[in-house]
Amino acid sequence: MPVEGRNTRVVIDGVKPEIDSGRFPAKRTIGEEVVVEADIFADGYDVLSAVLLHRKDGDSEWIETPMEPLVNDRSRGSFRVSELGTYRYTIVAWVDQFKSWRRDLSKKVEAGQQVEVDLLAGAQLIGEAGQRASSADAQLLQKWQKTLSSTQDREQARVRLALSEEVLTRMEKYSDRHSAVTYPKELQVQVDREKARFSTWYEMFPRSTASQPGRHGTFKGCEARLPYVAGMGFDVLYFPPIHPIGLANRKGQNNAPESGANDPGTPWAIGAEEGGHKSIHPDLGTLEDFRRLMAKAEEHGIEIALDLAYQCSPDHHYVKEHPEWFRWWADGTVQYAENPPKKYEDIYPLNFESEHWWELWVELKSIMLFWIEQGVRIFRVDNPHTKPFQFWEWAIAEMKKDHPEVILLSEAFTRPKIMYRLVKLGFSQSYTYFAWRNTKWELTQYFTELTQTDICDYFRPNLWPNTPDILTEYLQSGGRPAFMTRLVLAATLAASYGIYGPAFELCEARPRELGSEEYLDSEKYEIKHWNIDRPDSLRDFIARVNQIRRDNPALHRNLSLDFHTVDNEQIICYSKKTEDLSNVIVVVVNLDPHYTQSGWVDLPLSMLGIPEQQSFQVHDLLSDARYLWRGPRNYVELNPHVCPAHILRIRRRVRSERDFEYYI
Amino acid sequence: MPVEGRNTRVVIDGVKPEIDSGRFPAKRTIGEEVVVEADIFADGYDVLSAVLLHRKDGDSEWIETPMEPLVNDRSRGSFRVSELGTYRYTIVAWVDQFKSWRRDLSKKVEAGQQVEVDLLAGAQLIGEAGQRASSADAQLLQKWQKTLSSTQDREQARVRLALSEEVLTRMEKYSDRHSAVTYPKELQVQVDREKARFSTWYEMFPRSTASQPGRHGTFKGCEARLPYVAGMGFDVLYFPPIHPIGLANRKGQNNAPESGANDPGTPWAIGAEEGGHKSIHPDLGTLEDFRRLMAKAEEHGIEIALDLAYQCSPDHHYVKEHPEWFRWWADGTVQYAENPPKKYEDIYPLNFESEHWWELWVELKSIMLFWIEQGVRIFRVDNPHTKPFQFWEWAIAEMKKDHPEVILLSEAFTRPKIMYRLVKLGFSQSYTYFAWRNTKWELTQYFTELTQTDICDYFRPNLWPNTPDILTEYLQSGGRPAFMTRLVLAATLAASYGIYGPAFELCEARPRELGSEEYLDSEKYEIKHWNIDRPDSLRDFIARVNQIRRDNPALHRNLSLDFHTVDNEQIICYSKKTEDLSNVIVVVVNLDPHYTQSGWVDLPLSMLGIPEQQSFQVHDLLSDARYLWRGPRNYVELNPHVCPAHILRIRRRVRSERDFEYYI
Repeated sequence: MPVEGRNTRVVIDGVKPEIDSGRFPAKRTIGEEVVVEADIFADGYDVLSAVLLHRKDGDSEWIETPMEPLVNDRSRGSFRVSELGTYRYTIVAWVDQFKSWRRDLSKKVEAGQQVEVDLLAGAQLIGEAGQRASSADAQLLQKWQKTLSSTQDREQARVRLALSEEVLTRMEKYSDRHSAVTYPKELQVQVDREKARFSTWYEMFPRSTASQPGRHGTFKGCEARLPYVAGMGFDVLYFPPIHPIGLANRKGQNNAPESGANDPGTPWAIGAEEGGHKSIHPDLGTLEDFRRLMAKAEEHGIEIALDLAYQCSPDHHYVKEHPEWFRWWADGTVQYAENPPKKYEDIYPLNFESEHWWELWVELKSIMLFWIEQGVRIFRVDNPHTKPFQFWEWAIAEMKKDHPEVILLSEAFTRPKIMYRLVKLGFSQSYTYFAWRNTKWELTQYFTELTQTDICDYFRPNLWPNTPDILTEYLQSGGRPAFMTRLVLAATLAASYGIYGPAFELCEARPRELGSEEYLDSEKYEIKHWNIDRPDSLRDFIARVNQIRRDNPALHRNLSLDFHTVDNEQIICYSKKTEDLSNVIVVVVNLDPHYTQSGWVDLPLSMLGIPEQQSFQVHDLLSDARYLWRGPRNYVELNPHVCPAHILRIRRRVRSERDFEYYI
Repeated sequence: MPVEGRNTRVVIDGVKPEIDSGRFPAKRTIGEEVVVEADIFADGYDVLSAVLLHRKDGDSEWIETPMEPLVNDRSRGSFRVSELGTYRYTIVAWVDQFKSWRRDLSKKVEAGQQVEVDLLAGAQLIGEAGQRASSADAQLLQKWQKTLSSTQDREQARVRLALSEEVLTRMEKYSDRHSAVTYPKELQVQVDREKARFSTWYEMFPRSTASQPGRHGTFKGCEARLPYVAGMGFDVLYFPPIHPIGLANRKGQNNAPESGANDPGTPWAIGAEEGGHKSIHPDLGTLEDFRRLMAKAEEHGIEIALDLAYQCSPDHHYVKEHPEWFRWWADGTVQYAENPPKKYEDIYPLNFESEHWWELWVELKSIMLFWIEQGVRIFRVDNPHTKPFQFWEWAIAEMKKDHPEVILLSEAFTRPKIMYRLVKLGFSQSYTYFAWRNTKWELTQYFTELTQTDICDYFRPNLWPNTPDILTEYLQSGGRPAFMTRLVLAATLAASYGIYGPAFELCEARPRELGSEEYLDSEKYEIKHWNIDRPDSLRDFIARVNQIRRDNPALHRNLSLDFHTVDNEQIICYSKKTEDLSNVIVVVVNLDPHYTQSGWVDLPLSMLGIPEQQSFQVHDLLSDARYLWRGPRNYVELNPHVCPAHILRIRRRVRSERDFEYYI
């Protein structure tokens, strides 16, 4: 006899979310609902019942919520997550004999058929439920059983009882689950804090914050800059590495192979006589200064994010203390970083294939923990794709045990499958290809993939229109309107985005050379003095956009993103909305930074909760203008030299004369 | 230390085919190639190597074939299956240090960089391979190692050697697999005989084959009908149940609740005094007659398929001998089949939830084996969706152990997920919703789903334009052209199809009543005498279509189906082709059975192997007409009263004056 063949009729399949057959957790944030769907079916025509089970990791008891059938043998249930950490969920389903019987009885009654024998069968099912019930309910069920089977009573009254909601509710409570099948996997959902989903980043080189040109900035200078950053509405302030910088093979301005005496070197060449990954560059200040800065930032509603760049300058103490963590050439030199034919002589990658990989893992984890001890809760991880997947999975899980509130942003501009794998392994957010998606078709394709496929269950995009490494051709050639366009897109297409400033708000757009995406006189290799008070700065515009983000919950999530037709390839239109449609945002952007473009926007009114036959108001939160629209097609016109975008909030219904009390 | 973290860098993922995480086998037929694809990637930039492993179940040794990288970290390999039964396959992949080194060396050389130290590193890799090599190869590798590391030799010559194909080939043979990762699942492919994929079915009631009206047909009568069936080109002749039919509650003509003395009853009410599922209806003949018929059929290239209908008439001996295999009402009667409010009093379903389910399973398996012993190798299974999935999985696996050549057609016109589940469990083919897909949009959607998604790896559709239960409204109202249209669609959209005849070829189209899909005077309840020699019969047309199917290998498979644009919603166009494009078939069908329709067909020339700038000939295999076409857009016009379809074979190139020897 191969199996218990009688009681395994139900199939549970096609569960969502389920990342890679349950190998990885889905991701949610505190307070969110986890909606679970599955194909649940059996042979034949019986009615099935199903429940969704969930529990916090560590809790011993499952909590049950019912699953409701949708169409095509698909069922749905949900639960809300209220704590950081991991939750588990699975599904139980069974052939519901009572509900099957009830459905058939109802059909037969409707067709006017004899049901005497059916009522006896029902009485038996109710009697059996009585055996499983608590004493009060048991009495009730026994009474019903008796009524149904007493052939003296009028059939009509017994049928009414049999089909009553009261009986159904009680029978659901004591449903016969002897044939219940449990989905064989316990699936997981990782619950993070809200900022893992909704965050607004500002990247800044601390060394470029001195009040006078030519000086090395300090954490004190950063403190002075806090009101400026907070004023624009950012809530994460991310610093490139703040550690001592190597002298050996230090690069000069514009990545020159030789450096001059005053060249500060790139912050990513970590490690010098003054220390390594757990030390602070002496010119920036002390650990105490850093902690003070964090405290001040908190007062401004800002968290400091640090860069985790697991690599060394030739002067890093690891090189001497742990030569086994590096690769050596046959000529006795350490292999520096290369991407042939490019050479990065100032940086030594770590060798994760070392026989001493375990000591290396432990040390790298200790770096993370060191900064967590200083109060850091957000890290941007440099090039995570050049370190083994297994390392990240282990290190992040280890760290999350005690610190589930930590957020990690993966800086992996690598091939898509590697990018996705990293976030599956535990990164909270990821950089994307946004910088290289400029046309309507590109943006629509890419963001449909990110938000409308299974990817959205684990991948949280963080959009950067620029970084110290990326000055896109669109920004180089589009002038100020291009910066405004890309800002609006980044801020509204995804719940998390960031800019590298002050280069961004000052519209810095000069490339090192034609065809290069590197900045001319890049801040990576020199200290800059930015005039943040320039009148043409985008700071006020950015502040406005970020205020709109904060005020509108539709922009706090990625899932509801939907693209709409515009009869002009230069204008893109999309909407986001809360589930209850209380907040509906329609964004219209002119992608052409040079010329005014106009067109007709097509909105799916009913999806957005707008009545088909009434006027509605759209309120441009950028310009504060209000327009009266009616019907699905409406005209837009955007002059990029004024403002290349509308961020429209739908104000549902417009009053008409019928609302006026004298009208009737 | 959580894992062996150093040597597990490679990820193997997204393997196809892989049905439900490997829970079910993919399906192929003998001689076919199993193409396997997977995402194979690692951190960083190293070059990876991968091999596909396969073996026949029971063989101990894996056979390796290389996998080649495609785009986007996807790799592909394949193997050919040559025996019936189950094959297993999996994937091994590793970081290929030599290939990574070789790629980098080549880039550095190209950039004119110093590579002395690189050559030393390569020499070491080659030396290590030497340790793993057979003695002859070891010598060679040692020699190369020496050459590469001898700094006296000219660098240019050493580089040439290092990058040579000769070294590469040898290094591939002794590739360092210490970091190899094996995909954790052994996936399966079920190999059937060709007829599981490519088959042409004819359904016929044996009792309606008497030469004179009013007589009960016999197996002898069936014998006489064989040349007719073979002449139309069918290779499977399927009989509804041939067993004794119950008397109790027997249905009369047109499913009347009462039967007259001469009513034969429906063949699906199996079991009477004369026997049950292992017996033959006495009026049809004996077991010997049946075996003789099978032998005769074989001479005509036809296999007989029997109906496996696991249900009983009230007179079946199971009811007395095994009352525990049925459901009983409280009033002491057996529950007949119901689909409330419909009642089938002449049929008792089996109760698979019986406590004696195991004895029932064993008995049902023995029925299958009984007919296999008589020589039957094809079964059409009646309503498999009302029996538990577990039963089918067990019974089919048991049967296939000794009889992998058996083919099972699932008659499950049920909800899609149940239909798909059944074929995953082991059915070789399945009925489909084809009968209810009539418009271009419906056909395109449905057949794209069946042939262009993962479904095609396990689901083999068998298309029936009619069955004894289904006379579609399209056939009812469309006349002879409708039958021709549906035949061409069935015969060319899928590799397997069937008709219920002679009702089909005689264009029988009268419904029991308006709005019903039941035949008037249905053969299910009475013996028919068909005049198969009627001059308006479609037999010659069917013979032609089936001949075209046999002659054109493009029509033997489902995978290559592709729909093409026509600027008329009433005309559908699609193509099928062999992989080498030696056989390309374009089908054009007028779906309007009433009026001539015309339009412009758009063909993707390059996909079909047709040169863009040359004329090509299309040969209509139905009418034998030949047309000269040029370019992607060509005109078609189809009069349904002449012939509603073209089945065009592309004759690639047309000769021009340039081919004439005097031209130059």
